[in-house]
Amino acid sequence: MKLVRLTYGSTIPAMPYFSSDLLWASGMKLADPFFLLEFQNGRRVVFVNGAEYPKVKKTSKENLSVRSLETETGNDDLECVVSFLKKRKIKKIIIPDSSPVLVAKRLTEAKMDVSSRDDVWFPERIIKEKREIEYVTQAQKAAEKALGVAREVLKNSAVDKNGFLFLPVNCKRFPLTAESLRTAMGLVLEEYGHMTPEVLVGFGKDSSDIHAYSYGPITAHQPIVIDVFPYSRRNGYWGDMTRTFFKGKPSLEVQKMYVAVLGAMEIAMQMIRAGVCGSAVYNEVVGFFEKTGYRERYNCKTGKEEGFIHALGHGVGVDIHEWPILCETPARLAEGMVLAVEPGLYYSKAGGVRIEDTVLVRKNGIRNLTSFPKDLDSAIL
Amino acid sequence: MKLVRLTYGSTIPAMPYFSSDLLWASGMKLADPFFLLEFQNGRRVVFVNGAEYPKVKKTSKENLSVRSLETETGNDDLECVVSFLKKRKIKKIIIPDSSPVLVAKRLTEAKMDVSSRDDVWFPERIIKEKREIEYVTQAQKAAEKALGVAREVLKNSAVDKNGFLFLPVNCKRFPLTAESLRTAMGLVLEEYGHMTPEVLVGFGKDSSDIHAYSYGPITAHQPIVIDVFPYSRRNGYWGDMTRTFFKGKPSLEVQKMYVAVLGAMEIAMQMIRAGVCGSAVYNEVVGFFEKTGYRERYNCKTGKEEGFIHALGHGVGVDIHEWPILCETPARLAEGMVLAVEPGLYYSKAGGVRIEDTVLVRKNGIRNLTSFPKDLDSAIL
Repeated sequence: MKLVRLTYGSTIPAMPYFSSDLLWASGMKLADPFFLLEFQNGRRVVFVNGAEYPKVKKTSKENLSVRSLETETGNDDLECVVSFLKKRKIKKIIIPDSSPVLVAKRLTEAKMDVSSRDDVWFPERIIKEKREIEYVTQAQKAAEKALGVAREVLKNSAVDKNGFLFLPVNCKRFPLTAESLRTAMGLVLEEYGHMTPEVLVGFGKDSSDIHAYSYGPITAHQPIVIDVFPYSRRNGYWGDMTRTFFKGKPSLEVQKMYVAVLGAMEIAMQMIRAGVCGSAVYNEVVGFFEKTGYRERYNCKTGKEEGFIHALGHGVGVDIHEWPILCETPARLAEGMVLAVEPGLYYSKAGGVRIEDTVLVRKNGIRNLTSFPKDLDSAIL
Repeated sequence: MKLVRLTYGSTIPAMPYFSSDLLWASGMKLADPFFLLEFQNGRRVVFVNGAEYPKVKKTSKENLSVRSLETETGNDDLECVVSFLKKRKIKKIIIPDSSPVLVAKRLTEAKMDVSSRDDVWFPERIIKEKREIEYVTQAQKAAEKALGVAREVLKNSAVDKNGFLFLPVNCKRFPLTAESLRTAMGLVLEEYGHMTPEVLVGFGKDSSDIHAYSYGPITAHQPIVIDVFPYSRRNGYWGDMTRTFFKGKPSLEVQKMYVAVLGAMEIAMQMIRAGVCGSAVYNEVVGFFEKTGYRERYNCKTGKEEGFIHALGHGVGVDIHEWPILCETPARLAEGMVLAVEPGLYYSKAGGVRIEDTVLVRKNGIRNLTSFPKDLDSAIL
């Protein structure tokens, strides 16, 4: 029986039903959801509404044929797609598990035989083309520019008698807040043609949270974790980068944590290459943390896991987090993968330290797409 | 049989499975998807993972109880939710049609009785609280600031001998492009604590497309349609606003279109009030366009619909487009609704004109949350 793969969604983030798969496969940026059909012979057809049709014809990928839904009969978009398929005697459809329930329901009502899958929908996405590597590199450059500005602002700040940072402007003192740092970085990203849903700025005890998002005046001598993930408005690709800064030296305990995270990064960078298993790299890093006294543990008081509590890294492309994941689960690395590598340590009392670079996997090692310094000396401002 | 409503998703746009419903009901901004359960007695429980738990306890809405998934047994988040429900003898679950297929599938596999619905999931969302009206007003102010900058830049530009705009800087000529206008506006929004997935700038013939998105140097004497929809980084609410500008007078034909769109806006603004039906307002505007010579029609040459080809407006809140929709379908307007009203005319040859304000529906009329001028004189720069 003839089978068709159907992908549905919009291709601009923050629009309903955003599908990065669809963006990747079509290359078209559309605010309204549309359809991609793939036939068993490899033929790919995109169905868009009539108003969009003339525009998208120009931007679509080469291997795609673009059709207007208005050339089909039906009361709405889904009926049009069904009528197209029925004319071709296709009744069996497979959709990704991420599709909205509505799509499955409507196809079933139209007597189609629908199934869904939660595997990687386009495994080809994992290996990046030259063009895609360039896109991530650009996003990474934008992240470096934003982090550069944050570092400058932190450097130029002073510490008041309560241990909070402020900026002296015309004899007045303006508290240096997480909010203002986020705005400054957002502005830089925008200038470089990128945007971000959020810049994560977490300081002090908050930084013990892996998605730390602080408010108010920043504190001295404690971790300031800044995680920047810019999305290119031009091409839809992401970058991902984290640095941990300190205004004034942190405690010896935190310095040791920083050095351990840096050591973990070094190990990962040395091991990552085509053919190596992602879980081997992850396990090596976990082993290193344990050896240096950072065993993962459960804090009964706070009810939180502490130590190195997340994956070591993940693919970066048209999603911030995509395949492969560097964790306990085996995942053979291959040339052309682009990976964010982000060891980190988190303790309720001391706070958190995370460092993250995005790298390209090559035959004999990595090419780091990030060149921002990460030694302890340059982290203390 | 006891029934539970389940909403699943993340609450930061551009993160996978973003659910505005969940943002509205929880008030919590989380990058990772989580669960909201509603019991028949009105009780609402949010389930988040252990790492997020301490943080979100602080930001959640008053009527919510927040629980950590780590207090439940199960191999993953969904299993934890299922085990929680089974302990309470609940087997019947209803989810919105926008949920990912995966959720329906996993619940069915766990022997739950799952159904889905495509109605408005939280009808209460349609009537805005005072706080929400304030949020949209702030976003609308950000949109006005951005459009103000666009207007200034267009005003300061000059026209070269080919009819393209340029900016004279230090005796050099920089082409004024749609890209640079978008960047300038994006920067302004960011400064005001807002972001946007896209600023729509469409000029010349492109503007005949309802989602016009042009590239390159802008042309004089033709429509420049700018649609700005800022999202507040603070609270997740949107604004929505469109203006059509001209650098130098456009043709008489386009001027007439502009005046007709303005007339349609006037009619809508006069009619909108609590108790009126949205379709009555829409029909009145359609009638007005027809009377003034702008009947909707199909252009055989281009394969495009022309004239007033979209709805007259839509609700604005935690979605850019939400209920009610001002179209042929009846929808009784009520006090506290916030509506974007956007009449427009689109012709392949002449281009498009659209004007959009966002207003608050009141008992005896509207309060316009937008104060940016829209007469023809101020549109010609």
